[in-house]
Amino acid sequence: MNPEHLSLIPVQQKERGWPGFIVTNPNCSTTGIVMALKPLHDAFGLKKAFVSTMQGASGAGYPGVPSLDILGNVIPYIGGEEEKIARETRLLLGKIIDGEQRGAEISLSAHANRVPVIDGHTVTMSLGFERKPTPSEATKVLHAFTGPMDVHELPSAPKMPIVVRDESDRPQPRRDRDAERGMAVSVGRVRECPILDLRLVIVVHNTIRGAAGGALLNGELLVQRGLVK
Amino acid sequence: MNPEHLSLIPVQQKERGWPGFIVTNPNCSTTGIVMALKPLHDAFGLKKAFVSTMQGASGAGYPGVPSLDILGNVIPYIGGEEEKIARETRLLLGKIIDGEQRGAEISLSAHANRVPVIDGHTVTMSLGFERKPTPSEATKVLHAFTGPMDVHELPSAPKMPIVVRDESDRPQPRRDRDAERGMAVSVGRVRECPILDLRLVIVVHNTIRGAAGGALLNGELLVQRGLVK
Amino acid sequence: MNPEHLSLIPVQQKERGWPGFIVTNPNCSTTGIVMALKPLHDAFGLKKAFVSTMQGASGAGYPGVPSLDILGNVIPYIGGEEEKIARETRLLLGKIIDGEQRGAEISLSAHANRVPVIDGHTVTMSLGFERKPTPSEATKVLHAFTGPMDVHELPSAPKMPIVVRDESDRPQPRRDRDAERGMAVSVGRVRECPILDLRLVIVVHNTIRGAAGGALLNGELLVQRGLVK
Amino acid sequence: MNPEHLSLIPVQQKERGWPGFIVTNPNCSTTGIVMALKPLHDAFGLKKAFVSTMQGASGAGYPGVPSLDILGNVIPYIGGEEEKIARETRLLLGKIIDGEQRGAEISLSAHANRVPVIDGHTVTMSLGFERKPTPSEATKVLHAFTGPMDVHELPSAPKMPIVVRDESDRPQPRRDRDAERGMAVSVGRVRECPILDLRLVIVVHNTIRGAAGGALLNGELLVQRGLVK
Repeated sequence: MNPEHLSLIPVQQKERGWPGFIVTNPNCSTTGIVMALKPLHDAFGLKKAFVSTMQGASGAGYPGVPSLDILGNVIPYIGGEEEKIARETRLLLGKIIDGEQRGAEISLSAHANRVPVIDGHTVTMSLGFERKPTPSEATKVLHAFTGPMDVHELPSAPKMPIVVRDESDRPQPRRDRDAERGMAVSVGRVRECPILDLRLVIVVHNTIRGAAGGALLNGELLVQRGLVK
Repeated sequence: MNPEHLSLIPVQQKERGWPGFIVTNPNCSTTGIVMALKPLHDAFGLKKAFVSTMQGASGAGYPGVPSLDILGNVIPYIGGEEEKIARETRLLLGKIIDGEQRGAEISLSAHANRVPVIDGHTVTMSLGFERKPTPSEATKVLHAFTGPMDVHELPSAPKMPIVVRDESDRPQPRRDRDAERGMAVSVGRVRECPILDLRLVIVVHNTIRGAAGGALLNGELLVQRGLVK
Repeated sequence: MNPEHLSLIPVQQKERGWPGFIVTNPNCSTTGIVMALKPLHDAFGLKKAFVSTMQGASGAGYPGVPSLDILGNVIPYIGGEEEKIARETRLLLGKIIDGEQRGAEISLSAHANRVPVIDGHTVTMSLGFERKPTPSEATKVLHAFTGPMDVHELPSAPKMPIVVRDESDRPQPRRDRDAERGMAVSVGRVRECPILDLRLVIVVHNTIRGAAGGALLNGELLVQRGLVK
Repeated sequence: MNPEHLSLIPVQQKERGWPGFIVTNPNCSTTGIVMALKPLHDAFGLKKAFVSTMQGASGAGYPGVPSLDILGNVIPYIGGEEEKIARETRLLLGKIIDGEQRGAEISLSAHANRVPVIDGHTVTMSLGFERKPTPSEATKVLHAFTGPMDVHELPSAPKMPIVVRDESDRPQPRRDRDAERGMAVSVGRVRECPILDLRLVIVVHNTIRGAAGGALLNGELLVQRGLVK
């Protein structure tokens, strides 16, 4: 959930005549992708993104993926996931203009894969921007990101929503998914792209930040802004 | 090895004053990538490629990757691999002009990852061409590919060097790496790309087609063309 | 199926008034256990057996074990399996006396476990006999085993139904399950037991010898003995 | 380390003329086995034990087991491990008589196996005692175990050193190794044995209780008893 989108709640209530409201959480892989892209989009204007995911089995729920399909294997397909990543990323990086949600104008090409990992989604990305950042400019922006101040102070909010790794072979799902109790996204290998502007890798804990923990954080924000009492 | 490149052997012998010659095999992931790209490049003129690999552990040799690094994990880095994929793909899809090797003019952005799979490299790709093919045109070209006739008739040559899979969730390394005794590349999910022209997935058996079997095939070709007697 | 038990078919037909008959295949882990124990039992008289299994996921069929249960894990329980191993081992190592099936008098204590392996059941055993064999006597008997001559000549029968491995760390499911096209049982680490007489390890391919291949072999035997025409 | 063995420190110092002393930690799989057996031995007098281990890869240190050996596989051998388990179990369940260490008179038959699990050793056991306990008597004794009072109050000591699981399919390494921050041993499936008295399964976190955490606890005990100041 993009906190700026909370201004849509009164619109939702008015249009539908609802006393309450419904707030939804995005897809578990989109959550990590958007968290990493948000500060880069705000600073440099994202235009194009190639993303290839390597998603853990717990993203499919229980019983989910049969072990005979995934032990020692890769499944290069997750039903509906590629479309969802494209649609939700545009939506979450978009703006509210006159009480209306406007998706960001980003072209996104997604490849969704399941790998024999329990928890943690790993995503490789090649990114193109309006203003091309150097890897070190992008790294600085990722480092500095805290999210909106009132979100940052919520009990479940991670101190650092984005953890930047400097090692050449990180982030890795088993070693980085639990960063900030699973509430941070880890980003690494920020480097030039031979076609677009940047290449990087992210890891997000799909069942914590991407699901239960993210929903908890949303709840805390609704209370804090007085939308739930 | 691109069979057309065999015309470089006399050049190599003359320039270095060698009575014999050296022929090398490409990197194990490049082998699969180039086999799938060769017919598409010949038909439509490849210009841009985003590739994200999910490579099996046997690609690192023995003892290779420690189990503590890869069990239930992804390592988003293989030293030198991304550069090698870009360089060798251009080389192998290039031409020989006046006894000189000219790399193809292709921009390639690679992300190399290790996954907990024994054998088989899986690669997702987004591809841009001079003449945009539809997915069904591309599929037809992949289906029709046999390689040069004299290679096709070698003992180790697969009957179908490229196996096209129609199922939504194939190819998979464990189920498709052994196609044509490990000598074929399996290609699937040929579909539109929201940014470039096509998206697809390939699987290649890294230690058969990508290594021992590929070297054997090269040897057979050298004998057949009278370069080794 | 113990070939000696085929003499029960006329009994079954007579008692039930059936024109045909029903022959069943044992449990996939029992198959391997009994194949290894049969020559040892015939030579030395098995009295006691402790067996601890490490069974591959394909033993549970499809979809079978959810990946969230078995990735990076061991499940120390397979419903009904321990009882089945004890009961069927006694039955298959038993005799037909006066048209009646007499189970062998063997005490068997089983521990059944599921491990993150696709195919292949690995079983550790401690064995006690009427006449204590040395490890080399037991190895000789295992080596010499061919099964009944008319079974040995069937098309699906392995040349060597038992493959004895000398290496200290074999048999292993991934490296040994395909011995004799999956129709042999591999036995290794034949050594003294501090409590009973012998310790050893076996590997059997559960979906080949333990299922489809074993059923095929039974069918061939029925034809060959004239029970099916 | 068996706390009763600390009385050997003055003996060690006197015999060797050492001002200090050396205290060692047992093997990582022995640690878990002995923790579960200690209360049962004290209550019922252990005489015989069959143990078959399924040990995680981290027990071999780093880089340890090559991934090509263990991915999708079982290695039924760990050099020296079976002898170590037998020797150390007798030692740690033994007594100090007149300043001399007397091993317990227990026959132990071990089978040591490596499985594709990162952390956590799972061990199946069949046990014979001087006085045969029922499963519920054994369970009660395991539940009641706290260890020596002064150990129980150390900062790193688990509140419950033994966690008894009632579910039919527990303990499992991935779900139970972290019990009591990895300092407890989980025991389950306590049931009759067709040959000896009891069968059960344990899980211990090999790198926490079996190594770093166990050493820390020993250090705390030495301080608490005034042997280290």
